[in-house]
Amino acid sequence: MQDIAAKILEGDRRALARAITLVEDEDPARYDILKKIYRHTNHSHIIGFTGSPGSGKSTLVDSLITLARNEGLSVGVLAVDPSSPFSGGALLGDRIRMQEHTLDDKVFIRSMGTRGTLGGLSKATREAAKIMEGFKKDIIILETVGVGQSEVDIAKYADTTLLVLTPASGDSVQTIKAGVMEIADVFVVNKADLPGTEKTCLELESMLELGEEGPWRPPVVKTMGDRGEGIDLLQQAIYSHKKHLYETGRIREIRRERIQRELEEQLEYLIYLRSWEAINNNTDLDKEIKSIEKEECDPYTTAQKLVEKYVF
Amino acid sequence: MQDIAAKILEGDRRALARAITLVEDEDPARYDILKKIYRHTNHSHIIGFTGSPGSGKSTLVDSLITLARNEGLSVGVLAVDPSSPFSGGALLGDRIRMQEHTLDDKVFIRSMGTRGTLGGLSKATREAAKIMEGFKKDIIILETVGVGQSEVDIAKYADTTLLVLTPASGDSVQTIKAGVMEIADVFVVNKADLPGTEKTCLELESMLELGEEGPWRPPVVKTMGDRGEGIDLLQQAIYSHKKHLYETGRIREIRRERIQRELEEQLEYLIYLRSWEAINNNTDLDKEIKSIEKEECDPYTTAQKLVEKYVF
Repeated sequence: MQDIAAKILEGDRRALARAITLVEDEDPARYDILKKIYRHTNHSHIIGFTGSPGSGKSTLVDSLITLARNEGLSVGVLAVDPSSPFSGGALLGDRIRMQEHTLDDKVFIRSMGTRGTLGGLSKATREAAKIMEGFKKDIIILETVGVGQSEVDIAKYADTTLLVLTPASGDSVQTIKAGVMEIADVFVVNKADLPGTEKTCLELESMLELGEEGPWRPPVVKTMGDRGEGIDLLQQAIYSHKKHLYETGRIREIRRERIQRELEEQLEYLIYLRSWEAINNNTDLDKEIKSIEKEECDPYTTAQKLVEKYVF
Repeated sequence: MQDIAAKILEGDRRALARAITLVEDEDPARYDILKKIYRHTNHSHIIGFTGSPGSGKSTLVDSLITLARNEGLSVGVLAVDPSSPFSGGALLGDRIRMQEHTLDDKVFIRSMGTRGTLGGLSKATREAAKIMEGFKKDIIILETVGVGQSEVDIAKYADTTLLVLTPASGDSVQTIKAGVMEIADVFVVNKADLPGTEKTCLELESMLELGEEGPWRPPVVKTMGDRGEGIDLLQQAIYSHKKHLYETGRIREIRRERIQRELEEQLEYLIYLRSWEAINNNTDLDKEIKSIEKEECDPYTTAQKLVEKYVF
């Protein structure tokens, strides 16, 4: 595994792909790699893309990749689909994009799906992003499908978070739940040739007027992703935010929060793993379940008993 | 809290509402209640309703409530919205339904939203369902918005799980991810007056043909929820499944799986709580984070060190 870590640091794409697979599979070996590469990270600009399905995120991401490549920057994309199993669009889109960028070895696109729990996916995404940082991508894009809690969790990991809206009905600013608007560093109104664009922009601007005055006021950028219009403005907005992060020292806070989260997550993981081992080695869980089945006990009392006896 | 438990068992609606609020708030006091009522549960038929937003679940649930009430059965509904913050429909719908059933004290409807993590919501839903069982509802309906992983988790808790589809585009059987079809005990094709209905039904039937032959073959029921058509067939399908569960003894397996899950979840919860306490009381986490910031260490190595030192 140390070999994989070394190869990632050297820029070996196959090693990167293998490491991300280890992360997806929740293979404990991934921690050897993460430990090895950790000190070589924190040099990428991480951009989170979130927004409801069908808002055109993938097309925007593609155009941004092209712009970044023209400037000689390397790009990694993690496309995450934790939301509806009914939306099959994301994976298809990725396959198409894979083809387009397949000859460019400075672009690495990988989609990650739901395996196990949603919490697991957002942990896996952060770990995969960390590994991409070790691969020394200049820009890492975390693209999520949908805007549920776990997408918000994933987006929060980014240095710069973009929320993509469309003027379409049901996507109106009023219907966006608390907690989602707050994560956006840049608002993107995509499909800005559709009716309702000005209304959506005005709603956003007046919401921003009403909000607390912070050190950064999120700009509202109009794009027409399909025609490639507004992408340069979007890129400028992203760069302005990056500049703001570095000039104000906010980037250090973001990294500090990230470290705290990584540490807490890792503590949870290890505690869980070891406690479970302690209980499994000492207890006949089947017997306990049978006793609850017979209504001799309840799960809450039994759990308390087991934890007190075998863990602490 | 023991007082609340006693009142719930006596059928006090306000005590029920208070207990569910304690669950939502993740108040540790909820476990006193759950311990008290646990042995009085397992008498309700739990029905899970899942399907993409806009498939008309709420209307179907309403019609089923009316049918059940006509038969003298009491009903509890937990409407869970873990998915997109962009869909504001569910809560509005609930408010309307609240009004409709407000005078019927045999119907208890409660919506639960995302507080904290998604995993937390599905745990909270199961705990709230447990408390409703203590309230001795004949039927408990768990209605989720969307069909993501956490909705699947919630639906899995039910005795009988319904998957609601519509003939609308994007909802075609092929686009449904693996793992979702398998949870359905009854398929409902709602809005069956729309074009594409027969195609959707045929797709479902041929998928069922291809699938493994199990002891229960999920029926496909066509409904027009808005006109109240097909609801009687839907109710019959639910009752057939219930009959199957009891005749084959499958209900005991389901309850056993539920106990196992409850026990495991409770173990996780207690382990997490106590480990975190142990670490917080003994460690200056800030110092550890600073050391990682200075690249003297990484979160994975630090977590390992702390767990070995203070937890095990």
